[in-house]
Amino acid sequence: MSAQTILSIATRGRGFTEITDEVAHVVRGSGVRVGLCNVFVRHTSCSLTITENADPAVRRDLETLAARWAPDGDPAYRHADEGDDDMAAHGRSVLSGVSLQVPVGDGRLLLGTWQGVYLWEHRHAGHTRQVVVTVIG
Amino acid sequence: MSAQTILSIATRGRGFTEITDEVAHVVRGSGVRVGLCNVFVRHTSCSLTITENADPAVRRDLETLAARWAPDGDPAYRHADEGDDDMAAHGRSVLSGVSLQVPVGDGRLLLGTWQGVYLWEHRHAGHTRQVVVTVIG
Amino acid sequence: MSAQTILSIATRGRGFTEITDEVAHVVRGSGVRVGLCNVFVRHTSCSLTITENADPAVRRDLETLAARWAPDGDPAYRHADEGDDDMAAHGRSVLSGVSLQVPVGDGRLLLGTWQGVYLWEHRHAGHTRQVVVTVIG
Repeated sequence: MSAQTILSIATRGRGFTEITDEVAHVVRGSGVRVGLCNVFVRHTSCSLTITENADPAVRRDLETLAARWAPDGDPAYRHADEGDDDMAAHGRSVLSGVSLQVPVGDGRLLLGTWQGVYLWEHRHAGHTRQVVVTVIG
Repeated sequence: MSAQTILSIATRGRGFTEITDEVAHVVRGSGVRVGLCNVFVRHTSCSLTITENADPAVRRDLETLAARWAPDGDPAYRHADEGDDDMAAHGRSVLSGVSLQVPVGDGRLLLGTWQGVYLWEHRHAGHTRQVVVTVIG
Repeated sequence: MSAQTILSIATRGRGFTEITDEVAHVVRGSGVRVGLCNVFVRHTSCSLTITENADPAVRRDLETLAARWAPDGDPAYRHADEGDDDMAAHGRSVLSGVSLQVPVGDGRLLLGTWQGVYLWEHRHAGHTRQVVVTVIG
């Protein structure tokens, strides 16, 4: 049994957009009781991550760390066609990843209490991002 | 065909706990011959990783690197409710990831000779961590 | 339904080898219409990643970043049995990851236009790397 949906998620520039509810909705509609849910973003300048869903300061601090992992406008970059945030976005996307899996049990996502699923936009400008949700079991 | 088990793994504070045998045991019991095994940790201050299982110095050096990737007690952090290691743990968890997949072939994990599956605790204190193992095929 | 193939990929030392076509070929042969494709590399000193497939400067810049994330020959490393690039390779492998999933829809990989699947060699010398491709649906 499997189900697949492509979500369009509008971001408002660099930062986190929680998509836990949207993903959970696809899982409920799939009829899968035990299996896996894959979430995949079809771009290379944003990423997906699971992190704490309570204190928003966690996400602000993740941006602080990401600015060290792959800074904007680094003079060592050769790829800067789309601006200072172009290569920084690709670097962060590689580190955080564009694909994640959450187990499904009893027909729902088996996330921990404090875990949320986030689309992490790494470009300064807002974009509409395609997110593929696939459930198999 | 699918199987799912939730393991409780007690960590002894920051560091690596190998769980390859526990995961392999679930795979053997599943009856799946060809498929995928997902391992997922239901927390945001630890992570899962696959790394070398031979020289323990590799894991010590990974801690050395992680202390640069997301240092304890960084003055830039705003989130420090649970101490100096709180935000460092979230940052490391995002980098290493909370979900991993290993292919199953001929009824067993298709890990390479030198690959081990590790639960990586990022908090200083030991915790009991819930690890969901799902096998589908 | 599932299919599994082990590819042997020869690398030419540190850098990226695109394997999108090889993975897509396994997907086409599998007969799976909707599902997941897992790609897994059975080593701990290389990794897999999805990144931009257009401008090769992106991959050069990723090497520049990786040299900061896990530098060669760092004096803090204790593990250096196989040379200056040994521990650097393990560190980069943990960050980039050895396993990735791409959704399959309508019988093909649902990659975005600019996404390529890459084997990322982190050792200076070329190696033959085993890559397991598993398709389930």
